[in-house]
Amino acid sequence: MINPTATLLISCPDQRGLVAKIANFIYANGGNIIHADQHTDFAAGLFLTRIEWQLNGFNLPRELIAPAFNAIAQPLGAKWEIRFSDTIPRIAIWVSRQDHCLFDLIWRQRAKEFIAEIPLIISNHPNLKVVAEQFGIDYQHLTITKDNKIEQEAQQLELLQNYKIDLVVLAKYMQIVSRDFIAKFPQIINIHHSFLPAFVGANPYHRAFERGVKIIGATAHYATPDLDAGPIIEQDVVRVSHRDEVEDLVRKGKDLERVVLARAVRLHLQNRVLVYGNRTVVFE
Amino acid sequence: MINPTATLLISCPDQRGLVAKIANFIYANGGNIIHADQHTDFAAGLFLTRIEWQLNGFNLPRELIAPAFNAIAQPLGAKWEIRFSDTIPRIAIWVSRQDHCLFDLIWRQRAKEFIAEIPLIISNHPNLKVVAEQFGIDYQHLTITKDNKIEQEAQQLELLQNYKIDLVVLAKYMQIVSRDFIAKFPQIINIHHSFLPAFVGANPYHRAFERGVKIIGATAHYATPDLDAGPIIEQDVVRVSHRDEVEDLVRKGKDLERVVLARAVRLHLQNRVLVYGNRTVVFE
Amino acid sequence: MINPTATLLISCPDQRGLVAKIANFIYANGGNIIHADQHTDFAAGLFLTRIEWQLNGFNLPRELIAPAFNAIAQPLGAKWEIRFSDTIPRIAIWVSRQDHCLFDLIWRQRAKEFIAEIPLIISNHPNLKVVAEQFGIDYQHLTITKDNKIEQEAQQLELLQNYKIDLVVLAKYMQIVSRDFIAKFPQIINIHHSFLPAFVGANPYHRAFERGVKIIGATAHYATPDLDAGPIIEQDVVRVSHRDEVEDLVRKGKDLERVVLARAVRLHLQNRVLVYGNRTVVFE
Amino acid sequence: MINPTATLLISCPDQRGLVAKIANFIYANGGNIIHADQHTDFAAGLFLTRIEWQLNGFNLPRELIAPAFNAIAQPLGAKWEIRFSDTIPRIAIWVSRQDHCLFDLIWRQRAKEFIAEIPLIISNHPNLKVVAEQFGIDYQHLTITKDNKIEQEAQQLELLQNYKIDLVVLAKYMQIVSRDFIAKFPQIINIHHSFLPAFVGANPYHRAFERGVKIIGATAHYATPDLDAGPIIEQDVVRVSHRDEVEDLVRKGKDLERVVLARAVRLHLQNRVLVYGNRTVVFE
Repeated sequence: MINPTATLLISCPDQRGLVAKIANFIYANGGNIIHADQHTDFAAGLFLTRIEWQLNGFNLPRELIAPAFNAIAQPLGAKWEIRFSDTIPRIAIWVSRQDHCLFDLIWRQRAKEFIAEIPLIISNHPNLKVVAEQFGIDYQHLTITKDNKIEQEAQQLELLQNYKIDLVVLAKYMQIVSRDFIAKFPQIINIHHSFLPAFVGANPYHRAFERGVKIIGATAHYATPDLDAGPIIEQDVVRVSHRDEVEDLVRKGKDLERVVLARAVRLHLQNRVLVYGNRTVVFE
Repeated sequence: MINPTATLLISCPDQRGLVAKIANFIYANGGNIIHADQHTDFAAGLFLTRIEWQLNGFNLPRELIAPAFNAIAQPLGAKWEIRFSDTIPRIAIWVSRQDHCLFDLIWRQRAKEFIAEIPLIISNHPNLKVVAEQFGIDYQHLTITKDNKIEQEAQQLELLQNYKIDLVVLAKYMQIVSRDFIAKFPQIINIHHSFLPAFVGANPYHRAFERGVKIIGATAHYATPDLDAGPIIEQDVVRVSHRDEVEDLVRKGKDLERVVLARAVRLHLQNRVLVYGNRTVVFE
Repeated sequence: MINPTATLLISCPDQRGLVAKIANFIYANGGNIIHADQHTDFAAGLFLTRIEWQLNGFNLPRELIAPAFNAIAQPLGAKWEIRFSDTIPRIAIWVSRQDHCLFDLIWRQRAKEFIAEIPLIISNHPNLKVVAEQFGIDYQHLTITKDNKIEQEAQQLELLQNYKIDLVVLAKYMQIVSRDFIAKFPQIINIHHSFLPAFVGANPYHRAFERGVKIIGATAHYATPDLDAGPIIEQDVVRVSHRDEVEDLVRKGKDLERVVLARAVRLHLQNRVLVYGNRTVVFE
Repeated sequence: MINPTATLLISCPDQRGLVAKIANFIYANGGNIIHADQHTDFAAGLFLTRIEWQLNGFNLPRELIAPAFNAIAQPLGAKWEIRFSDTIPRIAIWVSRQDHCLFDLIWRQRAKEFIAEIPLIISNHPNLKVVAEQFGIDYQHLTITKDNKIEQEAQQLELLQNYKIDLVVLAKYMQIVSRDFIAKFPQIINIHHSFLPAFVGANPYHRAFERGVKIIGATAHYATPDLDAGPIIEQDVVRVSHRDEVEDLVRKGKDLERVVLARAVRLHLQNRVLVYGNRTVVFE
């Protein structure tokens, strides 16, 4: 879609007239809504919505949209954010030694399945530098030990700032990111290789094998200070049987991890994910 | 939900201000929107939406809503319909000899998975009369032959009128309903035991077996004069293997047929299905 | 299948010649193998197999098959059991107040999806007596309190003996069966309304909702003294979204519970489930 | 698994003693069976089996296994083939302009998800030469027109011979391979972007969109002279909705095509696929 769009993600206490007020704001300024979706969480008393409209023909200059909308949003007690489709987000992919999610994300970005730049790969291992070079992406190798974690995270944070990164994707990074780091840079999507909340933590495939489950899964979620407990964006599963050894679970799981992480990254980049509490609304 | 709601299903040529105009109509009359979903089919240039609001506190008397909304809809060139959640639809279930979908629909209606009355079962066989009696539902046995089809359909139509039926569910009826009949009573949902458009027509499980497929399916669709070609509401599938004989496909398929038909009936009864051309928008 | 068959389920330490020895035993006596499947668990050093052959034309009288096979099995250190397809197992279904799994199992038994008798329903509530009467099945209402559990389980055990029950199916029984009871009657299949090991214990749908999962599941397993920790026979899942309230999870979950429990019961009754350690081999 | 194995795939008219005769042959020569699976197609009167055993400790020299087994197989009227796990098959991947399946197959081969060599890529377009070079694989660009098809196929056949190719994988080749070619080189796996038999031929995603299906699929099958009608090895599906444009079907479909084709290639290379008539037995 060549015509750029603006997208509003809004959550506010439920009350009469919300749809009308928001739609009027866009219509009054000559905007053409192309997608609008809303959800009411009755238990929480919350109205949540995503509205996307074409900027072509919209009478408000781009820099005035936020202040103008704020005049409407503030009396409603709304939390909101606005993004423009022609502002290209910048992603840093963090990896350890496994390359399947990395390759997959790069392939999808090249194939324009999502619109983003990937200027930076960070890893605690040197192994995947060759992949980075193959695709002309900077590769920063920062070993992590118990003793150097604080300095290395400071270093990582500086890299994110220098590279103007908007989103960190933990593509099988296999390290815990500290509470402090997440407080400073909260836009982090992680892929965990189980259908959470089953098998939180290390070695989920081994534990799935031992438990004798007939289905394994993968979960993409926003990282929070509590391990594998952040808001879930996407999950998927695949059947396994007694014939599958742990190494088969790992192999089948890789296909899940790839696709679940890619879907979550795409949904996030298209501003389709609205987090509230520890839940997500995914406007598909 | 004790509080009754009104639901509008609207399709109209895409243009600026549609969301605002519709939302304003509801807000101006004091309505509280609890669900709103829209879709734009860019190729067809169509805007399609479903809006549901609480009637409690809505200032327009119920009988004036339609004419008042028409004043807005007509200039937009919109097709629309309105339904009220406390108007209970009446279903006639048509069966042949298989009882699994019949039992399932009755169980779900009793369990209030959907809100409807089932006053009538029509069949070309006497076999399931015992089920009808078990649940206190009238059973009309009308044999169908090549020669008597026209008279029997006239009889069926009269039954639908006498019982004030809103929806016919072909729950494995195994007979073709004529073009004429559908013209006179178009609200018909059929379940076909294949993932359409594969295996249109008779004996889909036998043909699936012969083709050696690894997945079988079921499809719920609105009946149209062209066999198994109507707008699809819902589909689902299940894996099969070389170990499955035709009778296993039939058994596995029954589980699909049940759940796919029940989902379609529920979506229809909740006014979540909007048909345009030969396609459906399902507002889930 | 009119021709009766014998089925051997065997597990024994892996060693050369196992398939040959077992197949020779059947061939030497004129048996025609119609299904044979084997699995080797290399980590456990175990060979596990299921062999089914036609009794028609088998030269050993039925009562001599077990002792004759024992002469082969003992030197191999094998655990084994034999069942004949024309011995009809007898099931007791235990329920609480929900009827969906009960109805479903009765329907499938009537439809001959599995071959068994269901002479007895046990419940801690009187509610489903009407279903039992509808199908001519004895209904025993035994209230369970903290104080009377020991006596009531004694009573339940006596009922199982009197009715010559082979298998107990906990079809949403919602009570914990004691360690003692399971020791005395270990043939128990339970349905748990989550994809175990997620959401062990009470209220799994509420907890799934709070966790914000995108997939819910159901698990059929053999009951063991540890809550929801027994060998898993079958699992399945369904997608949910932010639009699904807890009551929607319950509704969608019921469809899963039905089909997962039914598959597990059918696999068990066809002697397709071999338990070893806390795992199952399911010979499909 | 370092220890090499032999695998027999056998189909023969059903008769008593087949399992015993085959197992005895292996046991008598000191072989240790690690996988054995059989299937009986009662309608066809066929016994089909796959047996894999360790060559380590097997007393027959490798070159004598086939003639020795033939002495057993011939009187049974059996068709059979034997393969050794340490004979590495050689694959030619044929592509057109889309790179997703090509990248995926190369990644999986590099990750050792299957054991094979990929010395050759053939294409009717020059576009993917860069991928071939990136991974050090020979790339043969052979344009196909109505007029030159016969000569080009002769050229392709010569390439397959020169490169000692065992298997051709049509990884979105988008061209019809002639009856003559298939007669000369029948080991061809194709990926078709629909759940066959729906949408045989060109533009399946466009036709799926027009038909308004709620599920799309992909099918891997052996190529036969009849278009998209060969024995099916593997299929899978994904849900779509009214929100998915044709380009979304294409995107979602690519994920299916990748994984379905990869599973089929892996199953074939592990000698798990037995074709008879137009059906496959997949010994998983």
